[in-house]
Amino acid sequence: MRVPIEQLEQTTLKAILNSGYDAAEADIILDVLMYAQLRGNNQGIIKLTGAGMPKSADAGQVRVEHETKLSARLDGAQNQGMVVLTRATDMALEKVRAHDIGMVGTRNTCSSTGAIGYYASRIAHEGFIGLIFAGSRPAVAMYGSYEPLFGTNPLAIGIPSAAKPVVFDMATSAMAWFGILEAKMAGKTLPEGVAYDSEGQLTTDPAAALAGAIRSFGGYKGAALSLIVEVLTGPLVGSAFAGLGDYQHDWGNLVMAINPELLIDRETFLRNVAQLTERVKAAKPLPGVEEILIPGERGDHLLEAVQQAGVIEIEDNLWTELQKVAARA
Amino acid sequence: MRVPIEQLEQTTLKAILNSGYDAAEADIILDVLMYAQLRGNNQGIIKLTGAGMPKSADAGQVRVEHETKLSARLDGAQNQGMVVLTRATDMALEKVRAHDIGMVGTRNTCSSTGAIGYYASRIAHEGFIGLIFAGSRPAVAMYGSYEPLFGTNPLAIGIPSAAKPVVFDMATSAMAWFGILEAKMAGKTLPEGVAYDSEGQLTTDPAAALAGAIRSFGGYKGAALSLIVEVLTGPLVGSAFAGLGDYQHDWGNLVMAINPELLIDRETFLRNVAQLTERVKAAKPLPGVEEILIPGERGDHLLEAVQQAGVIEIEDNLWTELQKVAARA
Repeated sequence: MRVPIEQLEQTTLKAILNSGYDAAEADIILDVLMYAQLRGNNQGIIKLTGAGMPKSADAGQVRVEHETKLSARLDGAQNQGMVVLTRATDMALEKVRAHDIGMVGTRNTCSSTGAIGYYASRIAHEGFIGLIFAGSRPAVAMYGSYEPLFGTNPLAIGIPSAAKPVVFDMATSAMAWFGILEAKMAGKTLPEGVAYDSEGQLTTDPAAALAGAIRSFGGYKGAALSLIVEVLTGPLVGSAFAGLGDYQHDWGNLVMAINPELLIDRETFLRNVAQLTERVKAAKPLPGVEEILIPGERGDHLLEAVQQAGVIEIEDNLWTELQKVAARA
Repeated sequence: MRVPIEQLEQTTLKAILNSGYDAAEADIILDVLMYAQLRGNNQGIIKLTGAGMPKSADAGQVRVEHETKLSARLDGAQNQGMVVLTRATDMALEKVRAHDIGMVGTRNTCSSTGAIGYYASRIAHEGFIGLIFAGSRPAVAMYGSYEPLFGTNPLAIGIPSAAKPVVFDMATSAMAWFGILEAKMAGKTLPEGVAYDSEGQLTTDPAAALAGAIRSFGGYKGAALSLIVEVLTGPLVGSAFAGLGDYQHDWGNLVMAINPELLIDRETFLRNVAQLTERVKAAKPLPGVEEILIPGERGDHLLEAVQQAGVIEIEDNLWTELQKVAARA
């Protein structure tokens, strides 16, 4: 189904409001979801369908529970992850503008923060280096084990540039949890080597994988990175971690913003980054490779195409489901 | 050959002094090389053999060329990488102790910084989170390309703990440049899928790989991380990057030290990290896995065994070569 962007936005906004959020929260969530949807990232409007993302009945007031000139820690008070991480990003930006570093952790949320490239992109567009780390429920095994202990633990990095910012966003798991759920829904098998069943056998059956564990990407190196993200979104921000504590309801996140002027003058840095990406794009491609892509560029290409067309292709069922949520009394 | 540790240290120190370094420099280099050698890391005494690591005739005075309360940038003035990165780590530690963050970049060195886990470990042992990024000559291709543009771009992360610190040290390349050189010397083939020849064909021939390019680890995600390390050790510190500029002689490095108290009280953090690693070690192992290892633990085990024995096994040729360098007039 080809849906005009404006109609998609309006329908999404209604679906968010119908999920119990106030207007300010809905603006934030809409922004994060559209960032993903228009870039072909699977953290878009599908989040509103099925069980959806109703506002928690336990949601209280987000509270700054620790603060220094350079940093803060927020108690998310069971509010929506995107809302809390947006607040954290705003604070990190205020601090980096004033003091060259802004580091804000959040705890006590238990819902998705969406495509975390969104927050890294915001920071990069303001001229700072942004790093985002997001925790979630145990789903991924340590290297050498098949027991799910880590979240899928994505990290995102945004780098400002005289050209387009570089925005890199990846799960440290071999596959996103959501990708496995999608495969199950669609009756598809998983690629080889991404998951274990509950007995520790490699499996391509998504249902068995959901009862087992996802592997990290890239062998022991990826697993070590997954462990590091677990540290940064658990122990460092006072959240649950590794399936200990109230891990169902207490996920953590960390935002860091760094002023490149701590090390070098701004113009030189921005020009250097642009030169670097230009050189990388001009590198000799492997046979069959049409374009060497900088992190974030695939999504930017899709966004540009969609914006030019003014319409976006949405899978029929998904559009029907979204409209249902938007039409609820 | 089983060599007493003390004898290895004395011989290594002589070899370093014979390579043109003064006593203060030699102490630093000895420390970094022994850290690697006693942990079974291949960035040890082998560096002193063959072409070795003679002090550059161009080496001048290391100079702080930019400084803020939280940060500094050093002109390494063609001094040895380990000496300059040690100076940078010292400065980062001074700054993090005083201001909770220390971020120090270096440029204008062109020699190895050794096992960069060494510097991350130092920072972690002082109670701070340490991040180290090291640039080098182009050897690694971007995803989709076979042209060597990035260094092997290692990163190291040190995390303090109430138990042993977590110290993670990895190249973002599928194989270390040195590992490929070793395979060539030993007449061995490379594992499948780690390198391209100069025509962009996958190769297991180390000589062809050295004339071609190494791949990043972990597919496009690893390649994106490699690109990020290139940004942090090139554009951000004013060094050459991506084979542009004086890339043979101008490599960059970045050290970052972060006080966890920016986010949480120290005791809680250290206890949390220890709990996390304890839980990970207790995870159900895959068949055939005897022990689930935390990053850095394999090296610690080897170190403990060597220290207990008081002797270390060194390959005969290597020991002979080291003794030759140590015995030079």
